[in-house]
Amino acid sequence: MTQHNRTLPKGFRGDMVNGFNPQDPSHLSEPDLKHIERRQRVLGPAYRLLYRSPVEISRGKGVFLYDKQGNEYLDAYNNVASLGHSHPRVVAAIHNQLETLCTHTRYMQDQLVEFAEKLVGTFEGELGKKGCAMFTCTGSEANDLALRVARFFTGNSGVIVTAEAYHGNSGAVAAVSPSLGRNSPVDPFLRLVPAPDSYRMPAAEIGRRMAEDVARQIADIERHGGGLAAFIADPVFSSDGLYFDPVNVLASVAAVVRQAGGLFIADEIQSGFGRTGTHLWGHVRHKVEPDIVTLGKPMGNGYPVAGVVLRPELVAEFGRYFNTFGGNSVAIAAARTVLEAICEENLMANAVKVGGQILDGLRGFQKRYECVGDVRGTGLYFGVELVKDRCSKAPDMDCALAIVNGLRDRRILISGTGSDAHILKIRPPLVFTSEHAARLLEGIEQTLRSL
Amino acid sequence: MTQHNRTLPKGFRGDMVNGFNPQDPSHLSEPDLKHIERRQRVLGPAYRLLYRSPVEISRGKGVFLYDKQGNEYLDAYNNVASLGHSHPRVVAAIHNQLETLCTHTRYMQDQLVEFAEKLVGTFEGELGKKGCAMFTCTGSEANDLALRVARFFTGNSGVIVTAEAYHGNSGAVAAVSPSLGRNSPVDPFLRLVPAPDSYRMPAAEIGRRMAEDVARQIADIERHGGGLAAFIADPVFSSDGLYFDPVNVLASVAAVVRQAGGLFIADEIQSGFGRTGTHLWGHVRHKVEPDIVTLGKPMGNGYPVAGVVLRPELVAEFGRYFNTFGGNSVAIAAARTVLEAICEENLMANAVKVGGQILDGLRGFQKRYECVGDVRGTGLYFGVELVKDRCSKAPDMDCALAIVNGLRDRRILISGTGSDAHILKIRPPLVFTSEHAARLLEGIEQTLRSL
Repeated sequence: MTQHNRTLPKGFRGDMVNGFNPQDPSHLSEPDLKHIERRQRVLGPAYRLLYRSPVEISRGKGVFLYDKQGNEYLDAYNNVASLGHSHPRVVAAIHNQLETLCTHTRYMQDQLVEFAEKLVGTFEGELGKKGCAMFTCTGSEANDLALRVARFFTGNSGVIVTAEAYHGNSGAVAAVSPSLGRNSPVDPFLRLVPAPDSYRMPAAEIGRRMAEDVARQIADIERHGGGLAAFIADPVFSSDGLYFDPVNVLASVAAVVRQAGGLFIADEIQSGFGRTGTHLWGHVRHKVEPDIVTLGKPMGNGYPVAGVVLRPELVAEFGRYFNTFGGNSVAIAAARTVLEAICEENLMANAVKVGGQILDGLRGFQKRYECVGDVRGTGLYFGVELVKDRCSKAPDMDCALAIVNGLRDRRILISGTGSDAHILKIRPPLVFTSEHAARLLEGIEQTLRSL
Repeated sequence: MTQHNRTLPKGFRGDMVNGFNPQDPSHLSEPDLKHIERRQRVLGPAYRLLYRSPVEISRGKGVFLYDKQGNEYLDAYNNVASLGHSHPRVVAAIHNQLETLCTHTRYMQDQLVEFAEKLVGTFEGELGKKGCAMFTCTGSEANDLALRVARFFTGNSGVIVTAEAYHGNSGAVAAVSPSLGRNSPVDPFLRLVPAPDSYRMPAAEIGRRMAEDVARQIADIERHGGGLAAFIADPVFSSDGLYFDPVNVLASVAAVVRQAGGLFIADEIQSGFGRTGTHLWGHVRHKVEPDIVTLGKPMGNGYPVAGVVLRPELVAEFGRYFNTFGGNSVAIAAARTVLEAICEENLMANAVKVGGQILDGLRGFQKRYECVGDVRGTGLYFGVELVKDRCSKAPDMDCALAIVNGLRDRRILISGTGSDAHILKIRPPLVFTSEHAARLLEGIEQTLRSL
């Protein structure tokens, strides 16, 4: 039996630099060390914990998480519970549905059809008018299905993504997720293009450059005997480093992709469900109509539900699709309640308002702290880029990690992203208030001051 | 844009012969027709409904499902709700946990580690002593992860499965699921072996034959320049037609597989969690120790939770694995409660007792009805093979479909399986009582008499 004998260089990004390093446990308490030892033994070597000092969590409510001692952590990171942890309305909807029925999509169920109609109706253009919804349990499954459909429909296997893209953990989508690191095999016909780095490229050129990069990669795929199945992008480029603007990029890319016979897949797993504040779906900011949209994380506020919205002709000859738990009665109840709550509780307007306050605060730090090279954001989603100096714009991973871990020690949870994990990823629940924003900003400033 | 112009022959098994045929809707009521039209438009062409006359379901309790009019259906098919629909203990556990915390595996959570230890402890041999558990949301994700691990660890891509295997819906596992039909592409290095058809082969030869078949396919993979990553099998061969016996088959196959450097993956998604009555895991009946075991369907009694149990050295170099919802706090609460309930409510003993009653009844039908060629079963899982005559043993799909749909009209839910969907697949919840068994048997006999 042969085994790969590759070694992971230190700081290797596939190994999650913003995670706990088991080789460096000396600062931990005895109970935490014991827990981690048990955990490593029974979950195995592939599991990771966040932060230099991992956090034990026992309870969640609203924007807060709590450990066993009752210490309160301000959650400015987890977008799964985007309505807040243990949201009463979602909990009640799931509980009621659990008591009534939890079964699959091969029986007729009114609520399944009604929710699918409602969901499809949130999209613009052709998708909104004629699209169909297919349900999975996870965003990985949604992207995997989108890729299966694209490859089947086009007869091609080539895929283009951004340089640090992450589209999930199944075999097929891990193979188009370069951010998993070089130990994780990628497809022979996967090609990469640089993310639209608005900090390092002139805004006016970004759209043209990305379209040209994509065209070049299509030519390379074809020269190697392949063809383009799809271009897949997160409309805010979360794992590349969060590039919210400019928004005139993806429409021109989509045109190039379609010209080559490929499909344009918008991965809305992080950018969807109102995260960007102004729009329910991130791709709408780019005025682009995707062929396929994939949905996930916040869709059920924690209940495993995800899905795909696409033009029905793409699956006309696809054959049957069945996902045992995908779109089951409870998943639908959870997802319906989340979509209703986003609208009825005015969470997008809240994201714009509170998000504006946070963005102002972060921009203030950019003025006062040399290491804060760039601040980007929309709605309640922010990227803060740490640099060694503002001329070279050289990424400062150590500084970013010090801030992420410094905030964790102040019981405020965020994380890092980008090729060097040097960009703070701040993504509070959509129910964040001005008070929460002030507490977050104060924590960041204290941490910046302490560096 | 090129599009595959393949057509589906009638009765083509990839198209699910035991499903509703939209070309034949004339017998349906106006409201049902309207529902199906709406459903087809918004879920698209890839979704299927069970039965010639699809069933509308609004409520479930114990072994029963109910439509809007309150009509009661005896569920003798759905093994997801294997503790019964809306099981109070599972509903309460999920509800309590939802009110407390629902978060992911990158924080320390005692219950996650405790459940993983408990789950691993249910396995025999090396797996039970040193195994680790990794959590996904669906059985497809579990098999997909098992396959990723096997390919990464061995450095090979070849896979061997049984001729009508189904291992899930992701791109990678659909490509090793020949039962999806010839429109669904399979891997270049996928090879098939016949299922251990105990109805058509002498029991004493089956183990030797299957080991020889596997060895021949390994040689074929190697001759084509590949190598074996894994042999994957459901230990009761559910989609091939349900072959519970003999149980001296898989150990000799596993030996051949390991000799070639491959891993033996036991897909327990249908056969696990006490379904076979005598054992919690189907592979234990074969006295084989798998390298990887995959779990799914009944694991959370409907909550989307699934997973993989494996030897930790297989993932030593794998890199990181993260599944946003996989093993979240609520998934763990659901799975823990299901495992406890199976043990504490003596459901395996119940499966043996009530299963024995059903098996006796089915064997009585085999004596009295010429079309019942073979009856197979263990625990609460049964295959009943319908044949045109007992000499030729020619599969009788029409007869099987008539029984499945005849039972549906009597409000008893089962389905069909096997290459020609000519084998009744009967799989009641583990809480089935003698009275339920009697009702099921009476319904089957009435249907057989009416043919």
